[in-house]
Amino acid sequence: MGKRCSKTSKVTRDPTRMFEPFRARIAVRVDREIGRALPRANTSPAPLHRAMRYAVLAPGKRIRPAIVLLSFQTYGGRSSGAWAAAAAIEMAHAFSLAHDDLPCMDDDDFRRGRPTLHKKFGEAIALLAGDALLAAAFQVAAAAGGPRDGAAREKSLMELAEAVGPGGMVGGQVLDMLGEGRPARRESVRRIHRLKTGALIRACARTGAHWAGAGRRQVEQVSRIADTLGLAFQVGDDYLNATASRKQLGKAGGSDAARRKATYVRAVGLDATRAELTRLCGEARRLARRLPRRQDLWAGLADFVEARQN
Amino acid sequence: MGKRCSKTSKVTRDPTRMFEPFRARIAVRVDREIGRALPRANTSPAPLHRAMRYAVLAPGKRIRPAIVLLSFQTYGGRSSGAWAAAAAIEMAHAFSLAHDDLPCMDDDDFRRGRPTLHKKFGEAIALLAGDALLAAAFQVAAAAGGPRDGAAREKSLMELAEAVGPGGMVGGQVLDMLGEGRPARRESVRRIHRLKTGALIRACARTGAHWAGAGRRQVEQVSRIADTLGLAFQVGDDYLNATASRKQLGKAGGSDAARRKATYVRAVGLDATRAELTRLCGEARRLARRLPRRQDLWAGLADFVEARQN
Repeated sequence: MGKRCSKTSKVTRDPTRMFEPFRARIAVRVDREIGRALPRANTSPAPLHRAMRYAVLAPGKRIRPAIVLLSFQTYGGRSSGAWAAAAAIEMAHAFSLAHDDLPCMDDDDFRRGRPTLHKKFGEAIALLAGDALLAAAFQVAAAAGGPRDGAAREKSLMELAEAVGPGGMVGGQVLDMLGEGRPARRESVRRIHRLKTGALIRACARTGAHWAGAGRRQVEQVSRIADTLGLAFQVGDDYLNATASRKQLGKAGGSDAARRKATYVRAVGLDATRAELTRLCGEARRLARRLPRRQDLWAGLADFVEARQN
Repeated sequence: MGKRCSKTSKVTRDPTRMFEPFRARIAVRVDREIGRALPRANTSPAPLHRAMRYAVLAPGKRIRPAIVLLSFQTYGGRSSGAWAAAAAIEMAHAFSLAHDDLPCMDDDDFRRGRPTLHKKFGEAIALLAGDALLAAAFQVAAAAGGPRDGAAREKSLMELAEAVGPGGMVGGQVLDMLGEGRPARRESVRRIHRLKTGALIRACARTGAHWAGAGRRQVEQVSRIADTLGLAFQVGDDYLNATASRKQLGKAGGSDAARRKATYVRAVGLDATRAELTRLCGEARRLARRLPRRQDLWAGLADFVEARQN
C-alpha cells in the first residue's frame, strides 16, 4: 500500500504527465462554454452559424484557455467568469486562423487535418464567420461573470482588444506578410512572433490573473512566464513547420520555406532554433518556481511546448 | 431688431437647417477622437496604420456618431465618454464597409468617391485593416469615460458587440449575400435591413442613452425612433441606388439591380419604395415629439434621411 502511494505521488510530480489531463479537462469545459455561447447551427443564417462552429469547435489543444485557467488558479481565483473569458479568447484565436487561411492571406487548404473554413464554406462565408467570431468573442467577454465582477471583466476585455488589434495579432500578421521573401533577421522575427502569437498568450495569462483578483506585481510576474512560453511556442512552430510531415501537422509542412517567411529557422538555422526552444522552455521552468501555486503545471506546460509534435 | 430676432428664431426652428450644423460639429470632434485613438500613420506596420486611417477618416457624414450624441443630449447626458463610444461605433462601421467592398463580397472599386480600401492597399491589407478597426473599436469603447462610468461603458460595449455580430451587421451581410438572385419579398428585405444597417443605428441611440444614464423605458423609447430611422435610411439607400448617378453616390449606381440584390425596390417597386421612405420618416417625426429634449434635431434627422441625395 505504501509503495502504491509513493508511486502515485511520483506520477503526480511528473510535470509532463500532469499537464495533459489538466489541458484535456479545460478543453472539454471551454468547448461547452463556446457551444452554448454561439448561435445554433440550425437557426438563420445557418451557413454563418455552421461556419462559426466549424471554425472554433475544430479539434484543437485549447492551449490558450488552459493558460487562462492555469494563471487563474495560480492566484487562487474562484469566479466562474474566468471560463467565459477563456472561451472568448479561444473564439478570437479561431477568428485569426480563419482569416489567416484565406486566399488573399496564406491561402491554406488544410488546418488541423480538415479543409480550411473557406475550402468548406466558400470565401465570403469564411471571411464573415471570422468577423462574427471576433464580435462574438467580445460579446462573451463582456457578459462574463456577475454584477460584482466589473473590474475583472473590464480588464480582460481590454487585454483581448489590445491582443487582437494593430499592436497584437493583426499587426503581427501584417509584419509577417511584409517579411515574406525578405532577409529574416532574428530581432525582426522575434517582433513578428511577439505580436502575432505572443500578445494573445500574454493576454491569456493576464486575463486569468485579473479574474483571480491578482495585483499589479502578480500580473507582471505571470506576464513574464507567458511571454517566454509564447515565444517558445512560436519558435517551436517554426521548427515543426521545417521538420514535420503534413500528417503530423494536419496541414502542409514546409510551407514557411516555400513562402520564404520570416521564421527563426530562416534567421538562425535549424540547430540554433532547436537550441533556442530548449533555452526558452528552461527559462519558463525557472520562472514557474517563483509562482505561488501550480508550479508543476506551469513546468508541465513548458515540457509540452518543448516536446510537441504538432 | 425685433424683426431680426423673430427671423433667427424661425430659422432655428426649421429642423432641416438645424440638423446639418449639428451633424457637422459632431463629425469634426469625432474625427479628432478617432485620429487620436488610431496608431500613427508613420509607425510600424505603416501600411496597416495608413489603411486604417484611410478607411475610417474617409469623407463621410458621420450619421452614426451624430445619433449617439443626439440620443445622449436627449436624455441630458454630460459624461465625455459618449464621444469615445461614438468614435468606436464609427470605427466598427468603417470595418464593415472595408470587408463589404472586398472582391469575395461586393467587389466594389469605389466608395465615397475614392478607390475602395483593397483597390488602394491590396486585398490582404484591406482585410487586416478591417479586422484591426474592429478590434480598435472595442479598445476605444472599453477605454471610454472614467472610473465611475463602468455601467455605461459595459452596456455600450455589449450594444456594440451585439450590433456587429451574427445577430447584427455580419448576420445581415450573410442574408444579403444569400438573397442575391432570389425573389425578394418585403419581409425578408426588412429583416436584412434590420440586421445589416438597423442594428448598428439602434446601438447608436441606445449607447447615447446609456451614457446619459437613461432608464430602461427611455432606452426603449429611443430604440423605437432609431429602428424607424434605421429602416428609413436603408430604404432610402435602396431608392438612391436605383435612381442616382455614380457622381451623386461616389460609387457605382444601379449596382443592386445588376447583382439582383434583395432590395425594397426589387420587392415592391420604385414608387412604393419612395412612399415607404416618406411614411417611415413621418413616423419618426411623430416619435420625435414624445422625446424629452432635442425634438427639432430628431425631426431634422428625419428630414435629412428623407431628402438625402447620396
